[in-house]
Amino acid sequence: MIKVGIIGAGRIGRVHSESISKYVKGAEIKAISDIRVTDELQQWAKEIGIPNVYDDYQKILQDPEIDAVLVCSSTNTHAPISIEAARAGKHIFCEKPIDANVERIQEVLKEVEKAGVKFQVGFNRRFDHNFKAIKQRVVAGDIGEPHLIRVTSRDPAVPPIEYVKVSGGMFFDMTIHDFDMIRYLSGSEVTEVYAAGGVLVDPAIGEAGDIDTAVITLKLANGAIGVIDNSRKAVYGYDQRAEVFGSKGAVQTRNDTDSTAVYSSEAGVISEKPKYFFLERYMQSFADEMACFVDSVVNNKPTLVNGNDGLQPVLIALAAKKSLNEGRPVKLSEIA
Amino acid sequence: MIKVGIIGAGRIGRVHSESISKYVKGAEIKAISDIRVTDELQQWAKEIGIPNVYDDYQKILQDPEIDAVLVCSSTNTHAPISIEAARAGKHIFCEKPIDANVERIQEVLKEVEKAGVKFQVGFNRRFDHNFKAIKQRVVAGDIGEPHLIRVTSRDPAVPPIEYVKVSGGMFFDMTIHDFDMIRYLSGSEVTEVYAAGGVLVDPAIGEAGDIDTAVITLKLANGAIGVIDNSRKAVYGYDQRAEVFGSKGAVQTRNDTDSTAVYSSEAGVISEKPKYFFLERYMQSFADEMACFVDSVVNNKPTLVNGNDGLQPVLIALAAKKSLNEGRPVKLSEIA
Amino acid sequence: MIKVGIIGAGRIGRVHSESISKYVKGAEIKAISDIRVTDELQQWAKEIGIPNVYDDYQKILQDPEIDAVLVCSSTNTHAPISIEAARAGKHIFCEKPIDANVERIQEVLKEVEKAGVKFQVGFNRRFDHNFKAIKQRVVAGDIGEPHLIRVTSRDPAVPPIEYVKVSGGMFFDMTIHDFDMIRYLSGSEVTEVYAAGGVLVDPAIGEAGDIDTAVITLKLANGAIGVIDNSRKAVYGYDQRAEVFGSKGAVQTRNDTDSTAVYSSEAGVISEKPKYFFLERYMQSFADEMACFVDSVVNNKPTLVNGNDGLQPVLIALAAKKSLNEGRPVKLSEIA
Amino acid sequence: MIKVGIIGAGRIGRVHSESISKYVKGAEIKAISDIRVTDELQQWAKEIGIPNVYDDYQKILQDPEIDAVLVCSSTNTHAPISIEAARAGKHIFCEKPIDANVERIQEVLKEVEKAGVKFQVGFNRRFDHNFKAIKQRVVAGDIGEPHLIRVTSRDPAVPPIEYVKVSGGMFFDMTIHDFDMIRYLSGSEVTEVYAAGGVLVDPAIGEAGDIDTAVITLKLANGAIGVIDNSRKAVYGYDQRAEVFGSKGAVQTRNDTDSTAVYSSEAGVISEKPKYFFLERYMQSFADEMACFVDSVVNNKPTLVNGNDGLQPVLIALAAKKSLNEGRPVKLSEIA
Repeated sequence: MIKVGIIGAGRIGRVHSESISKYVKGAEIKAISDIRVTDELQQWAKEIGIPNVYDDYQKILQDPEIDAVLVCSSTNTHAPISIEAARAGKHIFCEKPIDANVERIQEVLKEVEKAGVKFQVGFNRRFDHNFKAIKQRVVAGDIGEPHLIRVTSRDPAVPPIEYVKVSGGMFFDMTIHDFDMIRYLSGSEVTEVYAAGGVLVDPAIGEAGDIDTAVITLKLANGAIGVIDNSRKAVYGYDQRAEVFGSKGAVQTRNDTDSTAVYSSEAGVISEKPKYFFLERYMQSFADEMACFVDSVVNNKPTLVNGNDGLQPVLIALAAKKSLNEGRPVKLSEIA
Repeated sequence: MIKVGIIGAGRIGRVHSESISKYVKGAEIKAISDIRVTDELQQWAKEIGIPNVYDDYQKILQDPEIDAVLVCSSTNTHAPISIEAARAGKHIFCEKPIDANVERIQEVLKEVEKAGVKFQVGFNRRFDHNFKAIKQRVVAGDIGEPHLIRVTSRDPAVPPIEYVKVSGGMFFDMTIHDFDMIRYLSGSEVTEVYAAGGVLVDPAIGEAGDIDTAVITLKLANGAIGVIDNSRKAVYGYDQRAEVFGSKGAVQTRNDTDSTAVYSSEAGVISEKPKYFFLERYMQSFADEMACFVDSVVNNKPTLVNGNDGLQPVLIALAAKKSLNEGRPVKLSEIA
Repeated sequence: MIKVGIIGAGRIGRVHSESISKYVKGAEIKAISDIRVTDELQQWAKEIGIPNVYDDYQKILQDPEIDAVLVCSSTNTHAPISIEAARAGKHIFCEKPIDANVERIQEVLKEVEKAGVKFQVGFNRRFDHNFKAIKQRVVAGDIGEPHLIRVTSRDPAVPPIEYVKVSGGMFFDMTIHDFDMIRYLSGSEVTEVYAAGGVLVDPAIGEAGDIDTAVITLKLANGAIGVIDNSRKAVYGYDQRAEVFGSKGAVQTRNDTDSTAVYSSEAGVISEKPKYFFLERYMQSFADEMACFVDSVVNNKPTLVNGNDGLQPVLIALAAKKSLNEGRPVKLSEIA
Repeated sequence: MIKVGIIGAGRIGRVHSESISKYVKGAEIKAISDIRVTDELQQWAKEIGIPNVYDDYQKILQDPEIDAVLVCSSTNTHAPISIEAARAGKHIFCEKPIDANVERIQEVLKEVEKAGVKFQVGFNRRFDHNFKAIKQRVVAGDIGEPHLIRVTSRDPAVPPIEYVKVSGGMFFDMTIHDFDMIRYLSGSEVTEVYAAGGVLVDPAIGEAGDIDTAVITLKLANGAIGVIDNSRKAVYGYDQRAEVFGSKGAVQTRNDTDSTAVYSSEAGVISEKPKYFFLERYMQSFADEMACFVDSVVNNKPTLVNGNDGLQPVLIALAAKKSLNEGRPVKLSEIA
């Protein structure tokens, strides 16, 4: 049984906390920290059985009983806190992205390696039942050599413009998951990126310097070609599908729905819309990535989403951004 | 190349005529007869290339060049015309039902046997791509021993009450196809029938002495159980599905649609309704049953829907009617 | 926050315990009892946070702090323990069936009424996402008047013959859920039952005096017709589907699967089999029925599966058994 | 009733001949020409009722009774024969592509315009039931503004290498249909193309100077982005799907299959593979494009696939080829 500290009590920090307390055998949460400790947070922590709530994450890092920390604070603090945690000898689960700056990521990875602690990045979709089912077919050889990898990833609603302004742009706040998915499903590294994108959903997004619609083509080291299509707004809900096509076959997934009910009426044959957004669709994957992280720590296994898995999607996102700006394909070797 | 005469130029007579002239190699239509020869009929016959239009089917039976006839006249004439045709040495395709009277059917079958002519009954659904696909799995042994056979058969709209009054009732005008389908898919004979039914769609049907909704359970000689559900009105269209379940697996079919398009909007995920009615759904099967009949004649093969296949569903329908009236299961041995 | 005692620590008692401790806000388990208290049970109870483990359920009934009990002991004890619990003023969640004897059930219901305690029966499938989705369409009026209700319910594997001998037969150990489902989905009472069944899966089941395959037709008070098909062995897994068809449309559900992945290869287009069995398929429904029961107690609401809901399926099962034995439809008025 | 001459009696010439003779009211075939008139051709022509078979297409062009011609000869003759036909005052249905040379296409279009004859290009997929269903949703406004258009187009088998060497390459012999589809579904012109491709299926294709796998991104004048994925070999069959996504929703199509049968066994839940290849999948669309062409001639309507519709996909294919060669996006304005 390991003891865990959660740094950051925002939405994702709480999702992970509830996962651990409900589903993850082998771990208990000793403390959570947040820069703003409210009564509501105290109450919530008590209900799910977290004994300590701090306003300073240093108390977590300094607690010798705590084996592992979850870095769920704001993105710009992921790198420095991870470095401190590594130096404190804590195993680290770090939310994505580690950072938008490649050098800072590399510094984190160096410190992690030096400290010999576990490090897992929060690409939870790898733990989704649908994407795992694709991966299993690929690994089992049922697809043969992968030739084409397609990811459709569309959000149900535009984020607040204030968020768009600071997120680093769509490639960093949204497509980063899809970049990871292309690597995960193909089992290969991205070598070149071409991004076509535009502002088709909301002009305010364009005014904020970002795009809301894109098609990104990715060349992979194994010769396969990946393609992602993104939109910040699908009126029918969160559209999350993927397909791998290869020499022996193809495997694809549909969206999840709340039920399988199909209603036939004069108006047509109506199925349910996809589960609304990431909390509905990916809740089980959040629990499963926690269980996996705890298992890595407890049983001294490599994590399933390691430091390089945190780095590569950032490199791809930087290449995609450069490609969009310059209107040409960009090699990853131009970035790193 | 055989020569065919069509007796009866109503809807189904014309469907078969067009099938033969367009799709069936090895047959040409020499003549069509109808008790009412209109200008419109003459014009239609000319367009599809039928050289002779008669107001008396005897001219067809007496034409020594004609090898085979299609009996597409009104139901009460099926038996007498088939008998005359057999005596004239013509191969016979007879629309379903042969007759509602068991003895008259048996007389037809006797004459057919005596004359040594081919005889095929118009259970076209056996030629439908979906039901054939089920049958192939059954015959291939993929289902193992059949245990359950389910047929869903619902019409899109109530027929005219005048039709209901003379059709012999729902079991004869509609379920008769499903009774045949149970035999066809199971490869076994029905031994006992229990029918539960009611008037749920339209009281006028009840006033005409018929029902519009039913569930019929059928015990089969091989131990399997069949079940049919019927409605005279499915607001979403013609619902035609089947399933065979057995010791090694199950096979089931969905409805056909005009396209595979799926539309996702805020209102839901909308597929197409089933093809509207039997002409839309079963058109290809009408052509295929003709091709099969012609093949039987040309190559001297047994027909795929023989005299007994015409008789049995009538026996089952009579048993179903008796079961409904008497509120108890009825053995086929009580009927024949 | 209410306090709960669990009587019976077998499989279903543990399922409910874990549901309450993980998912149900507003309830905590104070004690669990079982006639055999093993080290393993003690360990399990400790892990999920149950402070007391008794070998005598009386300690639970006598504990004034305990508000509600879950009767998860062997079927023959459901009725007497429920009666004792009611007399002790405890709210009761009772596993199905309450009893196979109608008079004993009625005695339970009388005591429950007298005590004024909540009483919920464990028909968990009413809480399944798919069946709830059907129910919602029915309640919303989207189906119009229900005409046909179909339930397919097939187990993945034959139970041990020892179980078959004592379970009361397939209608009691398996179809009882489907009888409840017909009532739930139709919103109407069953008035007459006709059961056709046989031994097609395993002769040993027949030797034990039971059947393994059945089609049951149910006439409902509102004129609709229900039909259930059962098999004790579907080689492809747990087949749990339903459909309600009515004057305005139809709604049907498919099986749940572990993922939506579809694999296309030279061999065909392959989807996943249904979730294997009831624990896999219905786990969430077990949690949801618990949450609903606790909500009824805490907020003094009627339970969603009440005493009569526990009684009626038993009456239907008895009628079905009589129908099968006597080869005729049996009215429920012949039973009660 | 118009009279038609067919120039070229290869596979596609015969497909169109049979379509006209079986399905198209308002047209009859007076003659067919081919440079090689075999006995087999004579026999086939007789069977489907074509009275004249010539070895010289000039006899067709010179026949004053013939209103319209179908140019189904080898690709390099499409342009010169179309020009001659226009000068002879014949309406023209020309197989795709008109030519691989832009100037020659423009010359054809000029002659057609001068002659005032109808001109339709053989992009039959516009007449496919699935793609038409997408188009109807787009035209009805159900999609809102189109944002993303996706086409998946994969052949079931590699063509003969001899064909690859002369076809002009995959973009001309295969993707050309998809380029047309992007224009058709989006209702907008392509302005820029980026092609990523490789030789992943068969090295012999690479040795012949072609590719067998590609992802092509297309920028459209209305701001939408199109994306096509191609493979010359999908082991599971002919994969032909499309999707249009926009501000109000999305519509997508699946593949067609021979039946809807789904087989559930211990091995999984198995559906049918897509219809094998273009003759199986698109047969009805070939008939419908003929009916549409005849309707244009008979009723003096614009054709649904006009000269510019023949030109644009060639421009796009040239841009795609240039993009692949130069590793950069190419504007159509660089080509024309």
